Amino acid sequence: MGRDARYAWLALKAIPGIGDVLCKRAIDRFGSPVAALNADPSEWTAIEGIGARLVQTLRAYRPDDEWILRELDRVDELEYDLIGLTDPRYPGLLRMIADPPPYIYVRGDLRPEDNRAVAIVGARRASGYGRAVTEQLSRELVARGFTVVSGMARGIDGWAHRAAIEASGRTIGVLGSGLDVQYPPEHDALCESVCGQGAVLSDYPLGTHPDPVNFPKRNRIISGISLGVVVVEAAEQSGSLITARLALDQGREVFAVPGPIGTRTSVGTHALIKQGAKLVDGVQDILEELLPQLDAPMEGGREGDRAGETREIALLPEERTVYECLSAEPRHIDELTARLRLPPAKTAGVLLQLELKGAVRQLSGNLFIRVE
Amino acid sequence: MGRDARYAWLALKAIPGIGDVLCKRAIDRFGSPVAALNADPSEWTAIEGIGARLVQTLRAYRPDDEWILRELDRVDELEYDLIGLTDPRYPGLLRMIADPPPYIYVRGDLRPEDNRAVAIVGARRASGYGRAVTEQLSRELVARGFTVVSGMARGIDGWAHRAAIEASGRTIGVLGSGLDVQYPPEHDALCESVCGQGAVLSDYPLGTHPDPVNFPKRNRIISGISLGVVVVEAAEQSGSLITARLALDQGREVFAVPGPIGTRTSVGTHALIKQGAKLVDGVQDILEELLPQLDAPMEGGREGDRAGETREIALLPEERTVYECLSAEPRHIDELTARLRLPPAKTAGVLLQLELKGAVRQLSGNLFIRVE
Repeated sequence: MGRDARYAWLALKAIPGIGDVLCKRAIDRFGSPVAALNADPSEWTAIEGIGARLVQTLRAYRPDDEWILRELDRVDELEYDLIGLTDPRYPGLLRMIADPPPYIYVRGDLRPEDNRAVAIVGARRASGYGRAVTEQLSRELVARGFTVVSGMARGIDGWAHRAAIEASGRTIGVLGSGLDVQYPPEHDALCESVCGQGAVLSDYPLGTHPDPVNFPKRNRIISGISLGVVVVEAAEQSGSLITARLALDQGREVFAVPGPIGTRTSVGTHALIKQGAKLVDGVQDILEELLPQLDAPMEGGREGDRAGETREIALLPEERTVYECLSAEPRHIDELTARLRLPPAKTAGVLLQLELKGAVRQLSGNLFIRVE
Repeated sequence: MGRDARYAWLALKAIPGIGDVLCKRAIDRFGSPVAALNADPSEWTAIEGIGARLVQTLRAYRPDDEWILRELDRVDELEYDLIGLTDPRYPGLLRMIADPPPYIYVRGDLRPEDNRAVAIVGARRASGYGRAVTEQLSRELVARGFTVVSGMARGIDGWAHRAAIEASGRTIGVLGSGLDVQYPPEHDALCESVCGQGAVLSDYPLGTHPDPVNFPKRNRIISGISLGVVVVEAAEQSGSLITARLALDQGREVFAVPGPIGTRTSVGTHALIKQGAKLVDGVQDILEELLPQLDAPMEGGREGDRAGETREIALLPEERTVYECLSAEPRHIDELTARLRLPPAKTAGVLLQLELKGAVRQLSGNLFIRVE
């Protein structure tokens, strides 16, 4: 993005009284921040939420040159990216929420396949159980091609990122501070690794110190960038529950991992399940919800032309055999095993491959259907 | 019950082709087993499900005198009770199911307050966690005046009975064998204790050996006798899940306790929660569902005349103070504490008393409302 365009993004967002929602509407209306800033303020009145008072503000508005230029210099110096809402690299799912950040600071790189993202979040003071579950889910999700998103905090967040990296997967960290103010300090090395296999991003100006009041705003990005949010452990009043609520507001899936009752760290996840979050007994419960949403190739994916094409999935002979034994009618894995005279583990393995290819879908109770 | 009446119950149930459902319909029609047996078989055709073939059977039917008389002698000898469907001592909730046992063998005694029953069931091979949860829930339920029902099996069942006894509560054991064939053998002493603080019952003829095929039939009594069924731990395919399904069919509440994922014993309870069972994070979750059902005094309870009376609850002065601070609008316990200037533990204690008296009801999130 050229310096002028970047200047315009910063100038647009800095208009007093114009928050992320109105920024988005301005971009929807004018097409770019440059066009928005060049428009006569009277044209802004066509935007829902812009009244006479904001038009006055717009007329009087002079961007803070000094701050903007210093910020852009520092972004260049640190070799960060500044990605605006209209940039094709801007995360597609995040763009769909009501209040996307007009631009984000990015370290590392965002790829089209990162649209296939799942957030794993939870308590900073988490248990050994929470750690084991987090690492397992993170590993299993990256093994199935998902990018693991989290908040770079201590506890569940850090374990989620680290397990994704160790499994050679993609991961994205979203900060509640400026991108140059890494927090917690002991996660400096982790941050480097995340940037090597994904990205760390923030919508806070450089130098913004981590402040708990920033976290809910940050959490909307964690959920906004993701197809769903998995809460592994959470105390009764916790940021993870806020993330879950934001995810619901954004129409994203919310998952919660149960744990032993009577433990501080499972009170929050149990409350979520009571409120309707999907109980996660294993990665399967996450895939069952999210894979159907991925039926269409992801934006920017490699599948090329995707308009109205019949999906043609290449199957190995053994996959074809199992596939043909399935229909829209749910069939139990034991029945398949018996019909096909295959060892049960073999059937399960082939079904998993088929599921990864999007050719079959597992329902609860070990039932399988064909995806037509 | 006189010997003739008891003879008639055994003779009625023994008619070939007449199961528990048709027995119930016959009693609904004729009023008693003696009347049913004395009726002309043609009169039976008014009963739904009775066709020409069963009328033939009825015409030809001669009770097995020898077996019936021997069974009745043995019941007397062992000092058991034989309680028929029309007996006021017959459990009120059990009488309401579609297929109640026409009569039950009872050792110990059944009381009217046993209508306020909750079943706690689960795996025989349960974990230390399952044991701790079972004992806690059982203790807490009997402390609130509930009778704890279970299946006298090893594991969760046995722990549920034992904890109820140790907490000086009432408990009922339902067997899948004849009442004189206690199983498992190491539960002989437990069985004695249960009879001392409740009852052990069965609908199987004396001498019937425990056979897993009997258990689903037995399980319908466990759930049928109870307002709700709490499944503490259960493997993927287990009897507890059958009990849960039967409870649903009977319109009873189903509760399941979550546990650490990846453990054999929580797969079943997690599956139940996914299917809509209420997650139990503590006894409160059970009370929240069941207390409202107990608003009307139970059948045979001490409250006497209950037709259309305005409920008048006697409150202590401190209870009155807290009660008057509540309305139909949920109010948080912290707010109550602040308004009333009471120590938090005191507020909680008084609220609990009010809840037990049916004057207030706790919602999730520590919110309370008045029961009008």
